[in-house]
Amino acid sequence: MGLTITNTPKRAEPQAVASAIEALAARFGNRLVTSLAVREQHGHTTTWLPNQPPDAVVMAQETADIQDTVRICAQHNVPVIAFGTGTSLEGHVNAPAGGICIDLRDMNKILEVHAEDLDCVIQPGVTRKALNENLRDQGLFFPIDPGADASIGGMAATRASGTNAVRYGTMRDNILALKVVRGDGEIITTGTRAKKSAAGYDLTHLFVGSEGTLGIISELTIKLRGIPETIAAASCSFPSVSDACQAVILAIQTGIPLARIELMSESQVKAVNAYSKLTLPETPLLLLEFHGSEVEVGEQSKNFGAIAKDCGGGDFTWTTRPEDRNKLWQARHDAYWSVRALRQGDGVGVVATDVCVPISRLADCVGETEADLNRLGLLAPIVGHVGDGNFHCSLLCDVNDAEELARADEFMHRLVERAQSMDGTCTGEHGIGQGKQKYLQAELGLEALQAMRAIKQALDPQNIFNPGKILPQGV
Amino acid sequence: MGLTITNTPKRAEPQAVASAIEALAARFGNRLVTSLAVREQHGHTTTWLPNQPPDAVVMAQETADIQDTVRICAQHNVPVIAFGTGTSLEGHVNAPAGGICIDLRDMNKILEVHAEDLDCVIQPGVTRKALNENLRDQGLFFPIDPGADASIGGMAATRASGTNAVRYGTMRDNILALKVVRGDGEIITTGTRAKKSAAGYDLTHLFVGSEGTLGIISELTIKLRGIPETIAAASCSFPSVSDACQAVILAIQTGIPLARIELMSESQVKAVNAYSKLTLPETPLLLLEFHGSEVEVGEQSKNFGAIAKDCGGGDFTWTTRPEDRNKLWQARHDAYWSVRALRQGDGVGVVATDVCVPISRLADCVGETEADLNRLGLLAPIVGHVGDGNFHCSLLCDVNDAEELARADEFMHRLVERAQSMDGTCTGEHGIGQGKQKYLQAELGLEALQAMRAIKQALDPQNIFNPGKILPQGV
Repeated sequence: MGLTITNTPKRAEPQAVASAIEALAARFGNRLVTSLAVREQHGHTTTWLPNQPPDAVVMAQETADIQDTVRICAQHNVPVIAFGTGTSLEGHVNAPAGGICIDLRDMNKILEVHAEDLDCVIQPGVTRKALNENLRDQGLFFPIDPGADASIGGMAATRASGTNAVRYGTMRDNILALKVVRGDGEIITTGTRAKKSAAGYDLTHLFVGSEGTLGIISELTIKLRGIPETIAAASCSFPSVSDACQAVILAIQTGIPLARIELMSESQVKAVNAYSKLTLPETPLLLLEFHGSEVEVGEQSKNFGAIAKDCGGGDFTWTTRPEDRNKLWQARHDAYWSVRALRQGDGVGVVATDVCVPISRLADCVGETEADLNRLGLLAPIVGHVGDGNFHCSLLCDVNDAEELARADEFMHRLVERAQSMDGTCTGEHGIGQGKQKYLQAELGLEALQAMRAIKQALDPQNIFNPGKILPQGV
Repeated sequence: MGLTITNTPKRAEPQAVASAIEALAARFGNRLVTSLAVREQHGHTTTWLPNQPPDAVVMAQETADIQDTVRICAQHNVPVIAFGTGTSLEGHVNAPAGGICIDLRDMNKILEVHAEDLDCVIQPGVTRKALNENLRDQGLFFPIDPGADASIGGMAATRASGTNAVRYGTMRDNILALKVVRGDGEIITTGTRAKKSAAGYDLTHLFVGSEGTLGIISELTIKLRGIPETIAAASCSFPSVSDACQAVILAIQTGIPLARIELMSESQVKAVNAYSKLTLPETPLLLLEFHGSEVEVGEQSKNFGAIAKDCGGGDFTWTTRPEDRNKLWQARHDAYWSVRALRQGDGVGVVATDVCVPISRLADCVGETEADLNRLGLLAPIVGHVGDGNFHCSLLCDVNDAEELARADEFMHRLVERAQSMDGTCTGEHGIGQGKQKYLQAELGLEALQAMRAIKQALDPQNIFNPGKILPQGV
């Protein structure tokens, strides 16, 4: 079943939890919170998965707080789960075995900015928007934008990406070094501020995307970019998803350095037209952004326009004026709310899921997915980071309707199988968490899972870090 | 001591080696080679380290050959060492504990090219130049260029980079997935052809740079790029390394997408003038390459020219004509041979070493390094991949002169300590191998080494894969 949790690790012993909470209360006073409301907030994530609250929450303020919390949890064999802003989508912060949540939101200091080196050192609770606001005066920005105003620590832990990834890469490509608190409370340093290194195993990238299961990130050194001199936005409608994808393939082959290129399916365009009172042609739409000097941005726009025309694209409009840029991208900004507005009802929620395929297969994958939605009588507008072959379905689903849930479940299964059969992955950017464990073995094989399990046991022999995530039971 | 091997793992039992060789001979016939000359070739690398030949060499032709060799070695507890082209620089293919070398040069098939997806699937023995020749007709290329015509498998294993890394990244950034033969001969698949994935631990990047110590790469899926429409080359002399670095810092901050930017020290320029009969100003020199459309390349050159002028640069010349480009870059192409020609003598060799620092510290690091060379009476022209803060010293040294070797040793120690004290790394691209193990703990701390050791034990519990590399003894 897709819409259920398949991994139910053994709960921590109640006596052990009580002892850990006692020790934590002595250490943290009223920064140790056990009220149900707060605990549920910390299990709550923006997913379709049931809430599994931790037994208590520690509000960390500095690295020593993380170290002490981990030490106390380890001593009592109690799970410990890192929490950033709770915007992850696959149940990453749920506490299926109970345990202690460390809330890192107050660890939000920017410790060093090295403008000449285009890097900075931050605490894990710094959010994307707060960071960029702080950097703006220096003409710098951090390019990863997953939509939500997530914490950078959480984005690292889940290997987030988003609309800018086609140009600037994902979190994987934008982290130079981490500090990670391990099971005995000591700190692993994974790298230096050097832009590249061939010094030993790549611990940085092992922790990026490990979803808090190998240790807790207490500090990050990340790469920054100069704010581009000029930003242009553009949009173009296409007769079919296939034509739109062909334009993107040609643009990338030609080396046009697209900064963002988003695909909206016909049903998504219809939703936005209705919600935002727009009059976009109700066919697949590409929204683009170009970064560079004025000359470069003009050149990129002109070259993309020519490719779009060859691929059957309609009016190609581009502009560098901020208010006009916003207007062109309004459809994208309103996408989520336009989907929500499509269907009312107490039990109706948006189940967000993502897959990623080689770009040559994207049109097929989206086409077959839309056919499947029709066949199953489901509504799920599609938005894609098309430069990466990554797309999202926003499945509208009444979670109180078992029969509809069963169809949703079938849809999600078939979506993942389809992506995997096309040499793709069950998740381009949302992560595995609880929701996608059942797909991992089909994608990478048992040997990869065994290697992951061996690494987990090597670095977290007590299995206290975020148990029940990533690795399926029984591997 | 810098110029010695500090890690001397226990040699395999002679009886075990003999039994393994017998089994391998039965399986591989004359593709199992035990002649001293061939064994020494496979221990020989382009380093200052003594040759430590393996006990035998298997010439692999397909994945099953790797699997069977590993199985036989595991059964007899005998080390197994992967060999590409033997161009690594830190003793990576030496066999300090003896064992079996698997030569992968005949595994040189390009299995699939996906032009629309800009990726291809290859065997590990494909060399960089062979790959690019094969791809040229399709308008594609693989951007990593470490100088030597290395095998792509070896470049992955050592996390190689080179002159193009400032624009295209290192091997880390250009590998989508690997197949790796593990200790029982089974194969771990680390990823798919999707451009990005958030599916589980990043095994791909764990194996990249693991120097054959965790398994043997049997297949790679790598990223390709479209050959740029236009390539421009440029060069510019600067009064000081500091001025040259400042120009590079400003160019990168402004977002000029430099494809290559190489720094040559004054002594390197002098060497090239003498060797190639050039008349370059004998001051630090920057050599650049720009990739893009004709308009973009013109814009980039113009913008860099303005920055160079502000930073005190001399004549800034750029050109897109291939013969003129080659002329501008001749100094760089001749760098190695110009250094060799500086000093004759039977025992004189070039000891190549590299470090990498944040770019804001590069001028200081190069300056202090040059002062140290003067103080120690040593000659080591410097070439730097300055966009990454990575530079190489080509230390001319008479290995038969113990007193000179001691000075060379002191120099190398101080070079690494200097880079590390500037938030940098002991190696930007050459790797750890045997030569730099002694510097790893100072750089990352004991906890990082313990994590690496735990991973090594988890994935290679028998310690058969390339023992004596990366991890220092006693950790």
